[in-house]
Amino acid sequence: MNNKIISYWSVYCLLLVMASSSLIAQKKIKQKPLLIEEQGSFAVGGKVLTNPGIFDPYKPTPEGQTFHGDHAYVFYQIPTNAHKLPLVMWHGIGQFSKTWETTPDGREGYQNIFLRRNFPVYVIDQPRRGNAGRSTVAATINPTPDEQQWFDVFRIGIWPNYFEGVQFAKDSITLNQYFRSMTPSIGAIDSNLNSDAVSALFNKIGPGILVTHSHSGGMGWLTAVKNKNVKAIVAYEPGSGFLFPEGQIPSPLTSSAGSLEASSVPMKDFMQLTKIPIVIYYGDNIPESPSNNPGADGWRVRLQMARLWRDAVNKNGGDVTVIHLPEIGIKGNTHFPFSDLNNIEIADIMSKWLKEKGLDK
Amino acid sequence: MNNKIISYWSVYCLLLVMASSSLIAQKKIKQKPLLIEEQGSFAVGGKVLTNPGIFDPYKPTPEGQTFHGDHAYVFYQIPTNAHKLPLVMWHGIGQFSKTWETTPDGREGYQNIFLRRNFPVYVIDQPRRGNAGRSTVAATINPTPDEQQWFDVFRIGIWPNYFEGVQFAKDSITLNQYFRSMTPSIGAIDSNLNSDAVSALFNKIGPGILVTHSHSGGMGWLTAVKNKNVKAIVAYEPGSGFLFPEGQIPSPLTSSAGSLEASSVPMKDFMQLTKIPIVIYYGDNIPESPSNNPGADGWRVRLQMARLWRDAVNKNGGDVTVIHLPEIGIKGNTHFPFSDLNNIEIADIMSKWLKEKGLDK
Repeated sequence: MNNKIISYWSVYCLLLVMASSSLIAQKKIKQKPLLIEEQGSFAVGGKVLTNPGIFDPYKPTPEGQTFHGDHAYVFYQIPTNAHKLPLVMWHGIGQFSKTWETTPDGREGYQNIFLRRNFPVYVIDQPRRGNAGRSTVAATINPTPDEQQWFDVFRIGIWPNYFEGVQFAKDSITLNQYFRSMTPSIGAIDSNLNSDAVSALFNKIGPGILVTHSHSGGMGWLTAVKNKNVKAIVAYEPGSGFLFPEGQIPSPLTSSAGSLEASSVPMKDFMQLTKIPIVIYYGDNIPESPSNNPGADGWRVRLQMARLWRDAVNKNGGDVTVIHLPEIGIKGNTHFPFSDLNNIEIADIMSKWLKEKGLDK
Repeated sequence: MNNKIISYWSVYCLLLVMASSSLIAQKKIKQKPLLIEEQGSFAVGGKVLTNPGIFDPYKPTPEGQTFHGDHAYVFYQIPTNAHKLPLVMWHGIGQFSKTWETTPDGREGYQNIFLRRNFPVYVIDQPRRGNAGRSTVAATINPTPDEQQWFDVFRIGIWPNYFEGVQFAKDSITLNQYFRSMTPSIGAIDSNLNSDAVSALFNKIGPGILVTHSHSGGMGWLTAVKNKNVKAIVAYEPGSGFLFPEGQIPSPLTSSAGSLEASSVPMKDFMQLTKIPIVIYYGDNIPESPSNNPGADGWRVRLQMARLWRDAVNKNGGDVTVIHLPEIGIKGNTHFPFSDLNNIEIADIMSKWLKEKGLDK
């Protein structure tokens, strides 16, 4: 090389280095540090079992001892310049607080996304689940292989095939993390007990917005009936427990996954659900007509029931919106839209709704 | 009031407002926001069970399905301007990651304290515990009342009496939170499996400092034997699993809590423990001579075993320090010094040791 070429080469290298530093800088700008004013954890709600007898410290037996259990476990973070109403995030069936943390493919989930949007975030492990595993009832837990069925029920695809265009990374590391984000119930799931614990949380923290997923959807309505501090509900793919007024429940809806029944509450309780804004989101790959694939077909009737419920609440003066994401042009979402590949877009839609309802002040 | 009095009154009110603003400002200065560069969670380690047969999505049974379990669950936070070596915090028996979070009386625990001191912090739920509850073995879990016994074994006092000067708040809310910070094991505690999972964590994150408590003490030595990325260990009240070279284990030590046996490893593995700095802390109210109170007496022989172990490691060129806190003038600590009322002082002692060993760069 002559000197001129060497010189050009040096400039080229320098430019390359500058460009890559700038890329790093850009990446850092993208992910500003989270500013957390306060964070911590606590147990809330629950029961105490008290065994008769007198405790002998020198020869201890269960006599005269206690057992505290059936509480929820809550981890919370309050960012600086926080909005007034916190988001209380409640996982679904087989899941725990991880639902809202890092996504299976390693990106930020709703916990971080909404901290960055200045919401205080509370993530729950419901009673008898995850870190709230101290259950007041006995349980036998078996490691039953069930993951291919969850792959189907959570609408990633029909095992071993992924749905075309699904918003889920197709590498094995992602799938490994996804399967490991489940944890068993220590004893029966008790909707009344669980909603009591989450209601106790709302007593402790005051007014807030409840964000539910799947099985916590129904328990979320129940919590709102119990506690006026639930000021709004964002429900992702509620699966069961739709509450209708007594005497007005619709007939069960049948799919190849089984029969879906509605629940009933006294009209007075039902009316509480007409007093807060509620939005419900469902993802993609829900069949429009009956299908012999039970994994997806169960969601057909759940979406149908959600619409019946919306109509019942709104007829009584409520404010329920059901958004089936493909109908607004958003395709490929699984049962977990908030952790899917397009979860920023999904969060934007939620943020827009919160703004419309004046919930982000 | 005449004008002069009104004027004095106004000045007085103004001073009051200024004083209270200054108090608020002071409080805010004390608790600066945490600056978190990155936070999230993941599963690490574990096994996969594969059921024979072919999975039928249309008629699902366990046939042909998988079960991922026995991983550890990890929540991590990396502060801005982070030190090079993270702290990996591992809970003890009956406990989970909460050990390091908010204290039972609502103050900041080691997670926040060491984030504020610029350490990346990883908190673990060991396999089959808390959020890592997906166990590959079947388990039956009973709600056996046991809390008065833990009160004694964790050296808060001798139920229903608190030790005089104990570093533990004596209100009922604190005790309620304390008892609810336990959660059961889903299946047997397997030291080898657990240390494999934590070793997998150190493979993933690279060099770090392991902070153990009680039962994880022994599993911590085992992890250091398995993984050279464990660059130092801080062990609070290790309870069992002291590893001696084969053929050199001391006789069991007897207390009113039972017999404490040491474990053995090949000399080659033992020598790994001589290559890293290790500090061990024990709290107060450990009897000096045999006592008929099994809650406290078990700790007498554990402290004795820790000293035998220190001597064995140091004789071979190691760097183990055992600090019995009352001997350096720090009184009243329970089995959980890092969450006791004086936990800032306890953290300061740990920080000083980390600095001495060059581990806080």
